[in-house]
Amino acid sequence: MAGLDIRTHLDQLSLNAGKKARLYRLLYGAGPANGTLMILPIDQGLEHGPRDFLGAPESLDPGFQFRLALDGHFSAIACQIGLAEKFYPEYAGQVPLILKLNGKTEIPADNEPLSPLTASVEDAVRLGADAVGYTLYVGSPRQDEDFAQFRQIRAEAERFGMPVIVWSYPRGAAIEAKGGKNTVYAIDYAARTAQELGADVIKVNVPNVQADLSQAPKAYQREWTLDAALSQIIRSGGRSLVIFAGGEKASEEETLAKARQCMDSGATGLIFGRTVWQRSYHDAMTLAEEIHKLLANYPG
Amino acid sequence: MAGLDIRTHLDQLSLNAGKKARLYRLLYGAGPANGTLMILPIDQGLEHGPRDFLGAPESLDPGFQFRLALDGHFSAIACQIGLAEKFYPEYAGQVPLILKLNGKTEIPADNEPLSPLTASVEDAVRLGADAVGYTLYVGSPRQDEDFAQFRQIRAEAERFGMPVIVWSYPRGAAIEAKGGKNTVYAIDYAARTAQELGADVIKVNVPNVQADLSQAPKAYQREWTLDAALSQIIRSGGRSLVIFAGGEKASEEETLAKARQCMDSGATGLIFGRTVWQRSYHDAMTLAEEIHKLLANYPG
Amino acid sequence: MAGLDIRTHLDQLSLNAGKKARLYRLLYGAGPANGTLMILPIDQGLEHGPRDFLGAPESLDPGFQFRLALDGHFSAIACQIGLAEKFYPEYAGQVPLILKLNGKTEIPADNEPLSPLTASVEDAVRLGADAVGYTLYVGSPRQDEDFAQFRQIRAEAERFGMPVIVWSYPRGAAIEAKGGKNTVYAIDYAARTAQELGADVIKVNVPNVQADLSQAPKAYQREWTLDAALSQIIRSGGRSLVIFAGGEKASEEETLAKARQCMDSGATGLIFGRTVWQRSYHDAMTLAEEIHKLLANYPG
Amino acid sequence: MAGLDIRTHLDQLSLNAGKKARLYRLLYGAGPANGTLMILPIDQGLEHGPRDFLGAPESLDPGFQFRLALDGHFSAIACQIGLAEKFYPEYAGQVPLILKLNGKTEIPADNEPLSPLTASVEDAVRLGADAVGYTLYVGSPRQDEDFAQFRQIRAEAERFGMPVIVWSYPRGAAIEAKGGKNTVYAIDYAARTAQELGADVIKVNVPNVQADLSQAPKAYQREWTLDAALSQIIRSGGRSLVIFAGGEKASEEETLAKARQCMDSGATGLIFGRTVWQRSYHDAMTLAEEIHKLLANYPG
Amino acid sequence: MAGLDIRTHLDQLSLNAGKKARLYRLLYGAGPANGTLMILPIDQGLEHGPRDFLGAPESLDPGFQFRLALDGHFSAIACQIGLAEKFYPEYAGQVPLILKLNGKTEIPADNEPLSPLTASVEDAVRLGADAVGYTLYVGSPRQDEDFAQFRQIRAEAERFGMPVIVWSYPRGAAIEAKGGKNTVYAIDYAARTAQELGADVIKVNVPNVQADLSQAPKAYQREWTLDAALSQIIRSGGRSLVIFAGGEKASEEETLAKARQCMDSGATGLIFGRTVWQRSYHDAMTLAEEIHKLLANYPG
Repeated sequence: MAGLDIRTHLDQLSLNAGKKARLYRLLYGAGPANGTLMILPIDQGLEHGPRDFLGAPESLDPGFQFRLALDGHFSAIACQIGLAEKFYPEYAGQVPLILKLNGKTEIPADNEPLSPLTASVEDAVRLGADAVGYTLYVGSPRQDEDFAQFRQIRAEAERFGMPVIVWSYPRGAAIEAKGGKNTVYAIDYAARTAQELGADVIKVNVPNVQADLSQAPKAYQREWTLDAALSQIIRSGGRSLVIFAGGEKASEEETLAKARQCMDSGATGLIFGRTVWQRSYHDAMTLAEEIHKLLANYPG
Repeated sequence: MAGLDIRTHLDQLSLNAGKKARLYRLLYGAGPANGTLMILPIDQGLEHGPRDFLGAPESLDPGFQFRLALDGHFSAIACQIGLAEKFYPEYAGQVPLILKLNGKTEIPADNEPLSPLTASVEDAVRLGADAVGYTLYVGSPRQDEDFAQFRQIRAEAERFGMPVIVWSYPRGAAIEAKGGKNTVYAIDYAARTAQELGADVIKVNVPNVQADLSQAPKAYQREWTLDAALSQIIRSGGRSLVIFAGGEKASEEETLAKARQCMDSGATGLIFGRTVWQRSYHDAMTLAEEIHKLLANYPG
Repeated sequence: MAGLDIRTHLDQLSLNAGKKARLYRLLYGAGPANGTLMILPIDQGLEHGPRDFLGAPESLDPGFQFRLALDGHFSAIACQIGLAEKFYPEYAGQVPLILKLNGKTEIPADNEPLSPLTASVEDAVRLGADAVGYTLYVGSPRQDEDFAQFRQIRAEAERFGMPVIVWSYPRGAAIEAKGGKNTVYAIDYAARTAQELGADVIKVNVPNVQADLSQAPKAYQREWTLDAALSQIIRSGGRSLVIFAGGEKASEEETLAKARQCMDSGATGLIFGRTVWQRSYHDAMTLAEEIHKLLANYPG
Repeated sequence: MAGLDIRTHLDQLSLNAGKKARLYRLLYGAGPANGTLMILPIDQGLEHGPRDFLGAPESLDPGFQFRLALDGHFSAIACQIGLAEKFYPEYAGQVPLILKLNGKTEIPADNEPLSPLTASVEDAVRLGADAVGYTLYVGSPRQDEDFAQFRQIRAEAERFGMPVIVWSYPRGAAIEAKGGKNTVYAIDYAARTAQELGADVIKVNVPNVQADLSQAPKAYQREWTLDAALSQIIRSGGRSLVIFAGGEKASEEETLAKARQCMDSGATGLIFGRTVWQRSYHDAMTLAEEIHKLLANYPG
Repeated sequence: MAGLDIRTHLDQLSLNAGKKARLYRLLYGAGPANGTLMILPIDQGLEHGPRDFLGAPESLDPGFQFRLALDGHFSAIACQIGLAEKFYPEYAGQVPLILKLNGKTEIPADNEPLSPLTASVEDAVRLGADAVGYTLYVGSPRQDEDFAQFRQIRAEAERFGMPVIVWSYPRGAAIEAKGGKNTVYAIDYAARTAQELGADVIKVNVPNVQADLSQAPKAYQREWTLDAALSQIIRSGGRSLVIFAGGEKASEEETLAKARQCMDSGATGLIFGRTVWQRSYHDAMTLAEEIHKLLANYPG
């Protein structure tokens, strides 16, 4: 199968028993259950605000995404503590939970971003979550605070056998000066940084291979096909599993094409949010089924 | 009943026993006792200073508000630790207490607000309080400190079974640049943020639907009726109960009209302070009775 | 009213705000709500084993006692952590909870009794309880361990504003040698001991005034009427509120007579278990109503 | 279905999200996956010593039981920390783990038994276990130490959302004096004690209804059918799920008959060890399949 | 090679990286360096007192054993904290250290033995040790204290990645009553107990197959060859590596024969003390060389 040769397998990760048990459930016990990941994130209400829901009013109720995660057979739902506390109990055990441990609003300026902790690894254990999520702003002038904060999370997660998924985002004024957060350079560095700091799974965005690389390091100043860029980024994740974000809502065709290209390049899975749930329930379910069909082609 | 279809009910909140017992007492054991909330806040002496009392000299004595909370059959009185320590003991058990856990003066500039802790959840337990209050400045450049501080409160409150009421206020220079703290955009984001971070009850202000939305995100750049705005904000609270502040003193008629509009839109209740107690005791009691009559129409 | 002159009132207890708020709820917010207590204990399943339920099969299901506590308008239900965790949530806030913090089975010999901790004051806070219960075996050869254990509970309860009800039982080989656990001497000493160690409420058994006092201290070696004995014991409770146990099942008439005599002697209330719930639901409700009528005569 | 009316359901347990998620996985995500439990215990090597393996040499290697748990589709395997650390990692996530937290050898006399801790709830979290097991010796003269030790485990388990399974065994000299550990009296008391102290699941032995009850409390001194005894014991478990041990090796027919009788009486499931694994792998698998077929008749 | 098929290999142990790195050094970086262990213990001065040195005066100076460990190319030296603090520094890194963490004198009676802690896992880390040793008295009436103490050591060792070697000794009055500490029954139970509690390596004594088994469990009441007994014990160690003690001084031939038999039966190695160092330095070195030659035949 395309991509399989560079895809990292659970058994290669040298995980302790708890991390392995929990990742196994995400990879083989739920969702496509073939070693791929299909995660539904609903943290945009905090990160972007309710504006993301105004065009698809059903989606304003978090119950919408929880039902969708269950009915659409997602590998897991990823959300903040507030939603987990109020909505997860009725789904407990039926769909795995990924608890996001930090977050922020988009209201203040983003030139020195830092995502403060909103919950703890122990909260995740208490809620029965199978992984925790952490947003790392690679390149932020406040990376020292970010790294220190992440170190605590990584250590706690190791102690409790909880897999760590890093939302690895290049961000901040220095990144902007070097071509912005969507260059292959920026995302590649973010993937490697997450690997270096101890991520078990790395979430990155799909790069824009048209983005201007003239201010990026010399080694990146060449033409990149999307395939080459994706492959480079996935390899930069090392033995951390790499999954790709869906980004803004796109058509069903575009969404599936993006999914296919990520998987062909060796990704372990997808974490598609808005492009899935900014639809009617019926349309979201239809798209989820299509993604399932696609992922069935990438057993690992 | 109007609004009832979107009003969240206690049984939907997945609360632990302690949170449920205490919220039950606020909703069904005191005040209107029909599932609505009618809270009397007296934290303005810290937040605004004694200027708020100068026009209604009786109100300068906190005993005034405590008596009013009891005689006016409020669901609870909300205040800082100092007032709770000195005035609550003689009312203990007769009227529920909500202990505000943070606060600040209005003296320094408000472009980077943060409300520091003034008391602990354990103080609230010791005083026999039935909830704690926390002011979150959504959008403040210091949101990282605010979130981190709130996280501790949320975790302690979970441990002790203490409901958390978030005074969720959009605030700071970035909010001002996007139309100010009274836009539906700002308040809507504040409601969602409080839900995401784990509020059990969310206190917000009634938006000004005339406020300029031209600098707000595109999705908000349209005409809003007050009904539509209130409904949107309440829905952004998800399974957290939403209550509305009364704001500055208004006439009895205006106050009751505001109350009615909030309740019709699906609010769980009201937290009306100045507009109630910046009156003579007799007038405040009269207004409290009128609010009682109104809330009797919204059983939940 | 008979007994009122020696009955201790909440305001005499110098309690901190939390203890006062919670005791107020027990005394005036639930049950007879007139300053008396009518508590339903269901801790016999641990203390005596299921044998207590065999003659009244409905009562084996703890849901029976919880429903009875609610429907029969008891001041509170008292039980161990296991029942509280599994049954209280659906009653949370509707009927006050007293969490028993220690307990034991009757299986091993009782000559050196000690009741080990089964839960903590913090558990009680988390569950939204309004008091904690502690069984003190006054006179046990292991009283040093018992006192030390109680000291921790008392200190925690003080810190959290949680009223402490002491099940004060004379017990052990030395008590047997002095006439047994039912003498006025033994129970009087138990009441005073509970007062001395810091009980807010003291639960004792009604003494048997026929019991042999020849081995008791000289001062007790005289005839005692039950009135005199009860009065003595209640006065030995000092400013701790004294309530009496119902003991084994008796007829409705006997039960009400015992209740009347306790109240006439100045008791604050009753904690009647088996004699109430070892009946059909209908009969138990009928008896509860009768007790209510009786307690209405003793406002405090 | 027979027994269903008295069988407790997960939704009745008022569990927090983590406990619910983990129990859901045991009840509906593995094994029969229909709400029943079929647990394979391999703690006999510590409790009885290797003598249990001498007649079935394959079973000496713990890998035998781990493979059997997986291939035989058990709900979970239950073992001590040493086996979990060395054998579970290669099965992590494929079969749920129940970590036994205490244990002892059978070498010293059993008249005052206490099972000391061998691992912690945090170990269970780290290993990715879905429940912890604790052996409580009901009636032991050392019950005070046992209760105190269990209290810590219960509190930790509550904090981490980890279900607690109590191996509730009547034991010690006082139990022997009252007819021994196999009477319906002794086991009934053990079931109630586990409920009172906070078990989520209770493991008991099937009583011997021929055992002498003449020294048991009066209420038990009558003829008991096995059905009546099992039903009584299950009801004494209240809202804790009750499962039955298999005991010594019996024939396939006897084993299945015992299983059927337990399930017909309302048990949630079975924890059959020696009678399953003291066979060749082939025969053990055959028996496991038969038990599966039987449990399929008791959906809950 | 004989025994290899049942010998456990490092890669089967599911160890964390630190435990694996340290055990690898013992198995492949020092001593025979072929996967076998040849450990020199010098803890007898505490356990037996200086009487062990009187017949071989050179051996009274711990420097003797340290030099021997280095010159004789042992896999490690095992000793108490006092010797480690004073003698190890000049050998640090040249020969691996195993720090014994508990010990006792033989002066008091041995019917209820417990070996108290004399050092911590952190001491072992500080000293650069590659493993810790713990003496467990299997079957002692004080096994509850022993298990609890060992649990702390195991947990600390897990945290620090420090391998744990259990000196697993059947001991105490109950063991004596069942045939004594040298029966295959007793030693077999000891091996299994160490496995169950989490040993990485288990040190046991070679059983006396002539010992009286008439009071042992039925399953053991048969003839045992030494080969069968050793094999049974090693299998009872499961995935923990099993090594054998040398016991009292014997002739070179007897010592080598014992070594050969243990290795042929599948042992991982030898921990021979007195029989090695109760000789002149020259003779001890000669014997060490012979053992080396023998172990070279058992690569793993």
